Amino acid sequence: MNTFSPFNGKTRLGILGGGQLGRMLLTEVNKLNVEVSILDPDPHAPCSVFEGSFVQGDFKDFDTVMAFAENVDIITIEIENVNIEALRELKKKGKKVYPDPEILAIVKDKGIQKQFYLDNNIPTAKFELVSADKAPENLPFSFPFVQKTRTGGYDGRGVQIIRTEADLANFWDGDTLLEEMVPFEKEIAVIVSRGHDGEVKTFPSVEMEFHPTANLVEFLVSPSSLTQELKDKASAIAEKIAASFNLVGIMAVEMFLTKTGEILVNEVAPRPHNSGHQTIEGNVTSQYAQLFRTLMELPLGDTSLRGASVMVNLLGADGHDGVVSYSGLDEVLAMPGTYVHLYGKRNTRSFRKMGHITICDDDIEVAVKRAKKVKEIIKAVSI
Amino acid sequence: MNTFSPFNGKTRLGILGGGQLGRMLLTEVNKLNVEVSILDPDPHAPCSVFEGSFVQGDFKDFDTVMAFAENVDIITIEIENVNIEALRELKKKGKKVYPDPEILAIVKDKGIQKQFYLDNNIPTAKFELVSADKAPENLPFSFPFVQKTRTGGYDGRGVQIIRTEADLANFWDGDTLLEEMVPFEKEIAVIVSRGHDGEVKTFPSVEMEFHPTANLVEFLVSPSSLTQELKDKASAIAEKIAASFNLVGIMAVEMFLTKTGEILVNEVAPRPHNSGHQTIEGNVTSQYAQLFRTLMELPLGDTSLRGASVMVNLLGADGHDGVVSYSGLDEVLAMPGTYVHLYGKRNTRSFRKMGHITICDDDIEVAVKRAKKVKEIIKAVSI
Repeated sequence: MNTFSPFNGKTRLGILGGGQLGRMLLTEVNKLNVEVSILDPDPHAPCSVFEGSFVQGDFKDFDTVMAFAENVDIITIEIENVNIEALRELKKKGKKVYPDPEILAIVKDKGIQKQFYLDNNIPTAKFELVSADKAPENLPFSFPFVQKTRTGGYDGRGVQIIRTEADLANFWDGDTLLEEMVPFEKEIAVIVSRGHDGEVKTFPSVEMEFHPTANLVEFLVSPSSLTQELKDKASAIAEKIAASFNLVGIMAVEMFLTKTGEILVNEVAPRPHNSGHQTIEGNVTSQYAQLFRTLMELPLGDTSLRGASVMVNLLGADGHDGVVSYSGLDEVLAMPGTYVHLYGKRNTRSFRKMGHITICDDDIEVAVKRAKKVKEIIKAVSI
Repeated sequence: MNTFSPFNGKTRLGILGGGQLGRMLLTEVNKLNVEVSILDPDPHAPCSVFEGSFVQGDFKDFDTVMAFAENVDIITIEIENVNIEALRELKKKGKKVYPDPEILAIVKDKGIQKQFYLDNNIPTAKFELVSADKAPENLPFSFPFVQKTRTGGYDGRGVQIIRTEADLANFWDGDTLLEEMVPFEKEIAVIVSRGHDGEVKTFPSVEMEFHPTANLVEFLVSPSSLTQELKDKASAIAEKIAASFNLVGIMAVEMFLTKTGEILVNEVAPRPHNSGHQTIEGNVTSQYAQLFRTLMELPLGDTSLRGASVMVNLLGADGHDGVVSYSGLDEVLAMPGTYVHLYGKRNTRSFRKMGHITICDDDIEVAVKRAKKVKEIIKAVSI
């Protein structure tokens, strides 16, 4: 039996990134009243309301990160795009850095990430790294195929589909990744957690439900509708990835179930993820609580479901720009089992992620139906 | 359909009192990113970590409360012992004060509170108000009976049992309340919530489980083991109280089930209460979320159970005084369905409320058994 004190100068936590993921992590940090500091360049970042903990500064800058981390014992991230050199240096100095900086170095570059899967026998779509100012003469894949920038892509940016010879005119210059386009049946995600002692627990897989006509994720449904065999397969892949990375922390593993029944890893994020928001109310332990446990080197929590849940992203209404107001919030809150999370963003913009709503019910069909209604009702508009 | 904006200068919330109840309320406030200020005289109060929101000052002082409330739109409390005159004045000035200052005036004085029950046909133990420097010649009740101070009692303080003629030597001077001592079978509590539009919802009743030998509440068990008929009766009493008070907010109603099957109201608290901590994980909507909904004049949430839950108060270990450390936390977190809440108190003292642990399970027997184990394992000791 160990003792734990939030006041012994060994559990002070530093978080690089002060967005909504950091904000939801803070709720868990506060439950054990651990001292926490958050670094973000944006003075209006979602975590900025926590004035005593918030430090304005650039997490991509070596010196800023080093200075920020001086009075913390454990460092984590809620965004990958941070100064990895500083994290390496901090680790050398004896600070605990979870996830390890080398994981970030691999994940940050989609080319290296793909190569990592190949080296570790983790199933993924065929790919080729190219370094060119125009499309190679001998294309490695037939049309259509995917081109991705190796770094900096986010929320669908940095990805394009090359469908025809004509599309080659738009081929991106420089270091990119070409990928075979695999027709998929479903897009699923598994969050895996791994402790400093190697203990591993996966969250039940979730499924993205797409808009019937537009190619947009509309709902995240937990649990997925996969067969038990496929669920086990997806979990096993996520566990293998966590072990291959020697992860301490949590990692979201996005996967495709192909039309032929294969599961292929698309990409990973070694931090809390949009595909795990519903764990706050839907699972015994949330992704945030789990991450926090790994950071404090406490035992992992039970990841099992408390029931079905569906998550709806609350995006800024198209054409609205300015101080935000929410219409339909009262109607949504009058529905049973609805949990509204707003991220503290003062200004809305078209399609900006302003919050999310989780709908819980024992019956997954009821939850999905209710989620569709929620999506219709609630709007983030400008005042 | 209404619109709701945390940024329109109509939802700024002020909380009098910055203890653990305020701290748990803040978690809900943050989910809708409402601007919040907290007033507490103690610079190390549990809410003091929220530096941007925390104002150090005396909530019993008229001028301090008036100044504090200047830039808020809605005012609530997490402790009864505040300056009621200031709240009356703020209400007159057009601020929303929930619960109403007149409720606090009634509740604050146990004599007036008992008279209120009598006037509103709410069942309560027989009582007599006395104003004397010694025991009256003609005692209204036979031995044993209860003497209570009318104001200022807290957590068992301000209550004594007069068992014999000899005990009369310890009779308290001044304005006190004498109460018939009713042998009770169980001590239960119901939290009732009521919106600004009169919508009422009660939480399922909970039961205090006493230590087999010492007369101490050890566990709070949700739901209670009452028959459905008695549950309904307890809920109906709580609803009647809320309506009689014209409550906007939440109110914890502590009741006795007597050996003869009567339900008698002991006392009420018009704020979040220790007997509702387990609602955070155990119910669809927590007492904190529910209070916050009433404050924002949003619809009430579903109060039903998500399963059984048992709450254990985490008190400072006897004889320990100093900076706190928790032993056994890792063992407790390794048990499924355990939720640890620490209140941010740096120093522990014998029996100080340092936090609580809620244990959830579908099977109430399993939850109770696990709670007993938790109580044995976790200790708040000094470093």
